[in-house]
Amino acid sequence: MTAVGSTPYGWFDESAREYVVTRPDTPTPWINYIGEGGYGGIVSNTGGGYSFDRDPRNRRVSRYRYNAIPADQPGRYVYLRDQETGAFWSPTWQPVRRPLDAYECRHGAGYTRIAGELDAIAAELLYFVPPAAPCELWRLRLRNAGVRPRRLRSFSYVELSYPDALADQQNLDWAQHIFRTRHEDGTLLACTEFRPDTTFFSSSAEPVGFDADRERFVGRWRDLADPIAVELGEPSNEDSPRGNGIGSLCHELELAPGEEREIVYVLGIAGDADGAARAVAAYREPGAVDAAFAALRADWDAYLARFVVATPDPAFDAMVDGWNPIQCRTTLHWSRFASAYETGLGRGMGTRDSAQDTLGTVHAAPERAHETLTRLWRLQFLDGHAWHQFFPLTGEGSVGHAAERPAWPQWFCDDHLWLVIATCAYLRETGHAAYLEQRVPYEDGVEETIWEHMLRAIEFTRAHRGPHGLPRIGFADWDDTLNLDHGSGRAESVWCAMQLCRALLDLAELAGELGREAEGFRALARETAAAVEEHCWDGAWYARAFDDDGRPVGVAAEERHRINMNPQTWCVIGETAPSERAERALRSMEEHLGTELGIALLDPPYDGGDERVAGTATYPPGAKENGGIFCHANAWAVVAAAKHGWNDAAYDWYRRILPLLRDDSDRYLVEPYVYCQNVCGPTHPQFGMGRNAWLTGTASWTYVAATQWILGIRPTYRGLRIAPALPSAWDGFTARRLFRGVAYEIAVERAGPGNAVSLEVDGVAVAGDVVPLPPPGRDRVSIRATIAS
Amino acid sequence: MTAVGSTPYGWFDESAREYVVTRPDTPTPWINYIGEGGYGGIVSNTGGGYSFDRDPRNRRVSRYRYNAIPADQPGRYVYLRDQETGAFWSPTWQPVRRPLDAYECRHGAGYTRIAGELDAIAAELLYFVPPAAPCELWRLRLRNAGVRPRRLRSFSYVELSYPDALADQQNLDWAQHIFRTRHEDGTLLACTEFRPDTTFFSSSAEPVGFDADRERFVGRWRDLADPIAVELGEPSNEDSPRGNGIGSLCHELELAPGEEREIVYVLGIAGDADGAARAVAAYREPGAVDAAFAALRADWDAYLARFVVATPDPAFDAMVDGWNPIQCRTTLHWSRFASAYETGLGRGMGTRDSAQDTLGTVHAAPERAHETLTRLWRLQFLDGHAWHQFFPLTGEGSVGHAAERPAWPQWFCDDHLWLVIATCAYLRETGHAAYLEQRVPYEDGVEETIWEHMLRAIEFTRAHRGPHGLPRIGFADWDDTLNLDHGSGRAESVWCAMQLCRALLDLAELAGELGREAEGFRALARETAAAVEEHCWDGAWYARAFDDDGRPVGVAAEERHRINMNPQTWCVIGETAPSERAERALRSMEEHLGTELGIALLDPPYDGGDERVAGTATYPPGAKENGGIFCHANAWAVVAAAKHGWNDAAYDWYRRILPLLRDDSDRYLVEPYVYCQNVCGPTHPQFGMGRNAWLTGTASWTYVAATQWILGIRPTYRGLRIAPALPSAWDGFTARRLFRGVAYEIAVERAGPGNAVSLEVDGVAVAGDVVPLPPPGRDRVSIRATIAS
Repeated sequence: MTAVGSTPYGWFDESAREYVVTRPDTPTPWINYIGEGGYGGIVSNTGGGYSFDRDPRNRRVSRYRYNAIPADQPGRYVYLRDQETGAFWSPTWQPVRRPLDAYECRHGAGYTRIAGELDAIAAELLYFVPPAAPCELWRLRLRNAGVRPRRLRSFSYVELSYPDALADQQNLDWAQHIFRTRHEDGTLLACTEFRPDTTFFSSSAEPVGFDADRERFVGRWRDLADPIAVELGEPSNEDSPRGNGIGSLCHELELAPGEEREIVYVLGIAGDADGAARAVAAYREPGAVDAAFAALRADWDAYLARFVVATPDPAFDAMVDGWNPIQCRTTLHWSRFASAYETGLGRGMGTRDSAQDTLGTVHAAPERAHETLTRLWRLQFLDGHAWHQFFPLTGEGSVGHAAERPAWPQWFCDDHLWLVIATCAYLRETGHAAYLEQRVPYEDGVEETIWEHMLRAIEFTRAHRGPHGLPRIGFADWDDTLNLDHGSGRAESVWCAMQLCRALLDLAELAGELGREAEGFRALARETAAAVEEHCWDGAWYARAFDDDGRPVGVAAEERHRINMNPQTWCVIGETAPSERAERALRSMEEHLGTELGIALLDPPYDGGDERVAGTATYPPGAKENGGIFCHANAWAVVAAAKHGWNDAAYDWYRRILPLLRDDSDRYLVEPYVYCQNVCGPTHPQFGMGRNAWLTGTASWTYVAATQWILGIRPTYRGLRIAPALPSAWDGFTARRLFRGVAYEIAVERAGPGNAVSLEVDGVAVAGDVVPLPPPGRDRVSIRATIAS
Repeated sequence: MTAVGSTPYGWFDESAREYVVTRPDTPTPWINYIGEGGYGGIVSNTGGGYSFDRDPRNRRVSRYRYNAIPADQPGRYVYLRDQETGAFWSPTWQPVRRPLDAYECRHGAGYTRIAGELDAIAAELLYFVPPAAPCELWRLRLRNAGVRPRRLRSFSYVELSYPDALADQQNLDWAQHIFRTRHEDGTLLACTEFRPDTTFFSSSAEPVGFDADRERFVGRWRDLADPIAVELGEPSNEDSPRGNGIGSLCHELELAPGEEREIVYVLGIAGDADGAARAVAAYREPGAVDAAFAALRADWDAYLARFVVATPDPAFDAMVDGWNPIQCRTTLHWSRFASAYETGLGRGMGTRDSAQDTLGTVHAAPERAHETLTRLWRLQFLDGHAWHQFFPLTGEGSVGHAAERPAWPQWFCDDHLWLVIATCAYLRETGHAAYLEQRVPYEDGVEETIWEHMLRAIEFTRAHRGPHGLPRIGFADWDDTLNLDHGSGRAESVWCAMQLCRALLDLAELAGELGREAEGFRALARETAAAVEEHCWDGAWYARAFDDDGRPVGVAAEERHRINMNPQTWCVIGETAPSERAERALRSMEEHLGTELGIALLDPPYDGGDERVAGTATYPPGAKENGGIFCHANAWAVVAAAKHGWNDAAYDWYRRILPLLRDDSDRYLVEPYVYCQNVCGPTHPQFGMGRNAWLTGTASWTYVAATQWILGIRPTYRGLRIAPALPSAWDGFTARRLFRGVAYEIAVERAGPGNAVSLEVDGVAVAGDVVPLPPPGRDRVSIRATIAS
């Protein structure tokens, strides 16, 4: 058995909670994130990537060339040049790509460390953003591992972007005239004449020279593999009065054998030159950099310590204790905006995306979930629906791709319902009932309480139902590409009916806890479920939706798209189906859509365009929503199976998409340490290839599936429920979870078949499966749970 | 004296009418255009560039990476590989950039020919678009110039774009899943599942293999300098089921000493695969390629033969007989949409740009001017103003940058007036009075005649006047960046008042010819000119505009922008100024704004943002509209000087911006054979650097200035006027001009000082300076013009 996460390109270092990339030439750039929500960016295993402040479209700091050749350039580079021989290289391999004697990249939570050695010069670059800082640090350590003294020059390189990234990339004529970079006192400052915002780049050591202008540094008709300044060993020391600004500082280093030197670079953006100077000065204080890194580590350690598990499955533990919650926090902060696939130009943040992103983080960062939810409720309109997307810096909302079809509905049926579901989850976790009284404005004016916002969300869906009494689908539901309403106002989403029921049951439970009227919610849920049962059962599974003409999609009578995953899982999650139908639906799903690498979203895929469903049929068979394996939806299958009591199916489905188990990197291509959004399905020539790693709702939902459903540790208004769906291969597990400030130490043991739980709390038997909060003052409870029928 | 157009990087071959680039490493890519209006694209001196069908945003064929590193990639490449040694290179130098034994690039009218020789293999690539074809041809000729037999493989490379170029570049997730490239029978076909449009790439010879997928061809972490397929000499022969499609065909060639082989590649886009097959088949017919190239040459020869001049100034002749009209026809077809600076994504075609573009082409391609004008009149609204920009494929109009400031006026004050001026020029050239009765719809519905359209254009400006009785400036006038109206509705353009007078005088003249009422036009012109004289004379020059508060811009009392070029030239062109004020204004302009490289647009430039003028002050001092040398406006200075009788100033100003005289390429940077839009002004650190070569209104206006004002050969309703402003250094010139189907052979001679003309037509003295059309049946007149006071 190979170690967890081992691939031809790296391995998982469990003790350090780092993914270690051992070769720079990964199948695709394997990236990480630094910073979160404020200043931050992406960094690849060869130093590629870019940065921005809050919003990669409207406040970009550095450039990246997506889908270009050479791939994964530019980035945060330091060239090293041996002043005796003139030889130069990149310790991050790129951009020079000269083979190194040793290479290792360690991606950790909020930092990346790349070490490269050549000819007895050992270099290490550590990239991170100090908590809440307006800038990033690159700590370069150089050590002479040889036996003779060495004289080196280092040249940093980062390509600065005019903050409006769209203008930077498309309005070359303007952007290249206005954005200027100058040198002052060891710091490079880039800004325009008409706005004070200033991008800055500096270092902790006195440079011997600088380059501010890309063309001067690189030279005509050269590239980043052989810039003239590095080849000659001479910086130009010229400002950049127009064109392309860069941050390049040249340092000279004499290193005796065994000697080590450190240079710290600072890159950031400030409101003006003074702000830039302050940020730079802050990290010149002795110890400031190490302190900042220690603070970052401590913050992540505390976050990750909120839930720790030990099961018989090391891959499960590695994900649940490390990369999965790291990924969850990343999606919460960057939504789907900036990744190796999303260019940081177009979409902004997603309303439903961010709502779901809170689900995987609320236990460990409830204050961030609170902030996100409040921000999202502001995107709601008085009629109850919400903007589909928004830009975090400007607050500008949008209807997303619906804008391309102005005659079709300009709303998605699920955005506002996710807000209800996520808010209930937040309340179950925190018990923060006062949140419901918080007043938040609508997009179109007045302010109301969160509770009233939730009621309006339900009301929108109630008021927008179609001929079968199901929610109208609008432009689309969770599946953006399922565009069934061509202006008729009649197309319906079966899946959304089930989602509505989930939201209603959550609200009813909440209302019950608060002593408010719950029956209205329950009645609408019953009515909706009845409509589903009456109209949507197709004999062996549920239909997916109805089109303008009331004709079903996702039924056996169709030639294409005969069955779709989502209603088969959500009939369980939304509790709309009788048990026998739920069971049959799950079985049909596995039978028709299951593969060893996950469950395909639908089958058979469309083969050629089909204006009836529009978006879905733009994809070729097996790609994305047209029959690809959508990992996000696979997480729902895990939840549904566990909820239905199919423990082994839940665990099996969970493992099929577990990235740490994908050791076939040359097929999978993407990072093995985080989930990707989709895997090419069995009908695609590249079946098994992953796409869109990192920013996907898969992160939160697999975390929920693993912790709340497989492990069965679920927050409730009255305490922590312990209701595992223990895989038959496991004899138990232990976990430590913080819940409302109390540490729950949990040991689960299987005593016999079945799923019934007997609880002992601090040695005392407790009825039911919910462990109540201990009396005030106690910050720790110890739980033994025994499973048997 | 060096030859005309000689620079360190090339020379002008007058006999071939080609600019010959002798080194590949030009300061910037020196480009050319192939195709026009329909299928076409740009091609640089190293084979870089891209193609599209009519619209580079909405129907892109191939990719280009703007402002990237490596620069000027990708393009239309052929790699050559010696099968004995494994050595490979690019005969266009890029992308391998291996030094060649010989290199020459010849840019001609509508074609580019690049020859590169290495190790006794002489290669020549000829790129062109056959007239009206939906595709381009690359004719590769290979000759073994050595003494031993050689075995080679060739690998073509072009990177295919999903036709929606914005999606291709920004929606990677979608575009990379849907756009697939497959091989069928020697042809590569790229399309989606849901649309039949098919991009195709084929060749005239049976390939030994192909690559359809960029990643397979290039290899991971490599670049276009060392693709794995070429390094190994083996194509993958694999389709591209997703990702990035390319056109790469591999041929094997055995060449005996002295032997030559030819392969013709075809790249294009068709409505479906059948259309692609037809286009490919068309150029497999023997002789079809040579015939197509001959047709292209003949078409351009005929176009250029419409006006030919011989003066004592070879640079003047080289421009007027060759590159200037070539550039004019290019601007007419591509507006400002796709160049080395304009990415082909954003702006579409410009209304006023295209209107002015007709001025330089109407004598030689009146049918194209007619078509363009008709298209532009359709962009007019019933209230008289017009869309500022539009996309040629979809017809979608826009207000351009005004959209960024929705509270400010959403129209430009000059668009519709240019349409009047250009239409009158068309009528003077062609005498096609029936055009005025042609009915054309407005953007908002109903249809009226061109004459009524013109009246509505005037009416819009008449109805939108400010407190001084001058035209309101709207979002801006000709100077896009002069944004003085912040919603007050009161800011005015002095320049536009002068433009209005020009339009009115042109209309009055037309009305007179037609026997229609002209006095209304004259009265409004007199009224407007009086307002200018009353409010805008600043003592030594005219003010440029008035802001929201009625405070003037471009006057001595200001600290910045004390004087602006345009009112000083247009007071002459619009005939608003008394002679002594015009003279003083021109003198002030030269005194305050003149430099040896052209006249700056304004001085002193803004230094730091100034929301009062908004756009202009976003530029640093000396850049673009903020005190740069705007070549377009310099052409107006030439017209004004000649019109005013300042012959030597006209000629001097003309030569200051003449690109063929710029032999300082390492400072000027841009192409020496076509005009650029702007040159950094004297207050900029890079004074003398050119930007935005090719697509600029400078082309048409310098052509008008040279032919109609310096040479003085001007079409009128009643014949051809001969009224030169002969430079004192010239003793005369000869010219041949086609006018309404009649060849005018003109010889001008100076007999004494002054500008008075005596005419002899076919040996007979004629009164005045207008040569009437000869009686029907005569297609030639011979004119002797003698100049003296």
